[in-house]
Amino acid sequence: MGILIQQAMILSMKDGEAPYLGDIRIEGDRIAEISHHLAANPGDDIMNGKNMLAMPGLINAHQHSPMSLLRGFSDDLRLMDWLDRKMLPAEAQMTPEDIYWGAQLSMAEMIRSGTTAYADMYIHMNEIAEAVTKTGMRASLTRGMVFMEDDGGRRMQEAIDLVHRWSGKADGRITTMYGPHSPYTCPVEPLMEVIALAEKEDIPLHIHLAETKEEVAKIRERYGMTPTQYLEEAGMFENAHVLLAHGVHLNRRDIGRLKGMRGGIAHNPVSNLKLGCGIAPITDMIAQEIQVGLGTDGAGSATTVDMFEEIKAATWLQKLDYGDPTCLPARQVLQMATRGSAGLLKLQEDVGMLEAGRKADLILIDLEKPHLQPVHEVESLLAYSVNGADVDTTIVNGQVLMRGRKLLTIDEDELYREVKVRAKRIVEGI
Amino acid sequence: MGILIQQAMILSMKDGEAPYLGDIRIEGDRIAEISHHLAANPGDDIMNGKNMLAMPGLINAHQHSPMSLLRGFSDDLRLMDWLDRKMLPAEAQMTPEDIYWGAQLSMAEMIRSGTTAYADMYIHMNEIAEAVTKTGMRASLTRGMVFMEDDGGRRMQEAIDLVHRWSGKADGRITTMYGPHSPYTCPVEPLMEVIALAEKEDIPLHIHLAETKEEVAKIRERYGMTPTQYLEEAGMFENAHVLLAHGVHLNRRDIGRLKGMRGGIAHNPVSNLKLGCGIAPITDMIAQEIQVGLGTDGAGSATTVDMFEEIKAATWLQKLDYGDPTCLPARQVLQMATRGSAGLLKLQEDVGMLEAGRKADLILIDLEKPHLQPVHEVESLLAYSVNGADVDTTIVNGQVLMRGRKLLTIDEDELYREVKVRAKRIVEGI
Repeated sequence: MGILIQQAMILSMKDGEAPYLGDIRIEGDRIAEISHHLAANPGDDIMNGKNMLAMPGLINAHQHSPMSLLRGFSDDLRLMDWLDRKMLPAEAQMTPEDIYWGAQLSMAEMIRSGTTAYADMYIHMNEIAEAVTKTGMRASLTRGMVFMEDDGGRRMQEAIDLVHRWSGKADGRITTMYGPHSPYTCPVEPLMEVIALAEKEDIPLHIHLAETKEEVAKIRERYGMTPTQYLEEAGMFENAHVLLAHGVHLNRRDIGRLKGMRGGIAHNPVSNLKLGCGIAPITDMIAQEIQVGLGTDGAGSATTVDMFEEIKAATWLQKLDYGDPTCLPARQVLQMATRGSAGLLKLQEDVGMLEAGRKADLILIDLEKPHLQPVHEVESLLAYSVNGADVDTTIVNGQVLMRGRKLLTIDEDELYREVKVRAKRIVEGI
Repeated sequence: MGILIQQAMILSMKDGEAPYLGDIRIEGDRIAEISHHLAANPGDDIMNGKNMLAMPGLINAHQHSPMSLLRGFSDDLRLMDWLDRKMLPAEAQMTPEDIYWGAQLSMAEMIRSGTTAYADMYIHMNEIAEAVTKTGMRASLTRGMVFMEDDGGRRMQEAIDLVHRWSGKADGRITTMYGPHSPYTCPVEPLMEVIALAEKEDIPLHIHLAETKEEVAKIRERYGMTPTQYLEEAGMFENAHVLLAHGVHLNRRDIGRLKGMRGGIAHNPVSNLKLGCGIAPITDMIAQEIQVGLGTDGAGSATTVDMFEEIKAATWLQKLDYGDPTCLPARQVLQMATRGSAGLLKLQEDVGMLEAGRKADLILIDLEKPHLQPVHEVESLLAYSVNGADVDTTIVNGQVLMRGRKLLTIDEDELYREVKVRAKRIVEGI
């Protein structure tokens, strides 16, 4: 007994393959077959694909999921006011249970807007892993480590515990990374220690890089080099697979330093815009064959974690920055949000493409809407007109997490009840 | 018998008024009363406002509605390829009936995404006026006039016919403007003729201005001045009310030329981004007290005409351009999309604000969604997280056009049938 999706428009994201009408059979956690026509087996759960587009689930390559509790709490502020006056005091009020519910709120939004896998860097990762287990999402989890204060190795120990306890759990949906927070919060000794550990255990790294001009100035002042050079000299790009978040302020030589690296850049255009950071030079990175994926960053800065907003923002900004509307065309930005992000999460063999044998992580989008008609080029509609609310069905690891816009693993009423009370308490406690 | 909306969160957009829980009574085409609590009258249509936000309907200050038929047909192309190879040949295939259905498709999308009034510049305006009459929207209609070819005054006559035949029709929902297309398509003589006519009849003007660098160069070469200066010297800003679309490439002196004008600038950030045009200096315009509204431009360039996308893009771009996240904060961009655009359409006495005595043009937004919880600052959610699909109910002139996401004046099945056949024929005819 599997799932049979019948006569959907299939956008596989395989190289050179145009959208076509076809059927998809899911058995267990994998795509068993894709073809123009498949016969139903007895007991199959049949999904009618009429007017639907099937595509790989979107992959959010950089998130801080519990910050959804602080959505809209601190907009239109300068970065340092945002951080010092709002985010840090509010985060200090958050309990492990708050983090569990905040993570689940983000996952509800992600599932409803077509995201099937994501990378999360935060604290209290056991609670987030429990939320991932419950909601059915695929996640790469990272305990973010700030090394400026002496905490007797507590953060490092929690990071190691996360990796050892949770890697491969939840039917293989959970993977893990080591997360030195950023060049400006990680002195070179602990940084090199984490890199060595990651190499030894063959675990990827997840780190922020060159998000703001201020960061570049700070690292220049402290070490006489760029943030990228600082990571390079610590040996980060030699053997480890690295997920670099942002990369807004990279110069030409920095981009050269990343050429040939394993992993790549998670581009978060909405957060970069909202915080006034700038535009990451991803067209130049792609020209140097650096892998680029797409993420939302946390809802504390981005407000929404709808990947279709990031898709629009990413392509708009490249066109703006180069004054050239042919930059980052629809197909390429969709590739970033699927295969690009999959590569950053080191899941490129399993997800990011619709193909027999891969994990069944996919979404169905209802095209029978005024803003999605007529259908001249389906990729153009996906890049420039679809929004998260057009996703009808979300499937992860062969499990249906949403169908007909109804969440099947999350009790929305309970979620909103919890979230309202907790958000109020957090803000009142500041 | 009227409509009574009970216990919604009301964002009136009145100066200094914060959102509050209250009731709204609609009688005929107007808001009769707004208060913390109103008693129901016998026969009232009661709308439960629980978890809903009520706000003025959004106003799209610049559209070419039938271009929805060409949505996604020509993305990722340079402006001249987009225009010469795709848009103009496709538009040449469009019949008056196509224009009627294309306009209706745009209206379906606008109603579903919370737009209650809009400004349209196109051809075959009788068909568009018929569509407005049918769908129940409020519209300011303009026959766009390109004066480069000698057509024996046909365009001008059609413009006059539109104004004389349709102003005030459809229960007052239709108003009209005169539309010299742009500085680069209007030599000074016919331009001055239209300005004189508009002044004499007290009808506003609607014109494109400084959308691209190429336009600025062309006008410089032809007349030795900027496009704004060209319009100023033709007398456009002396007495007439003028809706200027775009204003991307204005220098400091151009902005000075617009100071004190009647009307103002319709900012269309998504179209400007997608065509690689640049960022309009609207923060500088607002500092000079020039009225700024928000529009989508046609779906041929913008792909979607969801005003909530324009709201996001507008605030993101100002933050980016100034490297300052405090630029164009949530409240101000919402004001642009309501009161600002209302002022451009010369409807500032009637719409753009929720207040007893004004026309009943308003929307209800369902806040009980993962991306809209928790509610710390409702304006932040509206500016940065709401999308068109969150609009539950749309009311124009006291008539309910959508309720519970169901369109009440448009048959969607018939619409999609017509649109699919017509779009196919248009493209095949090129």
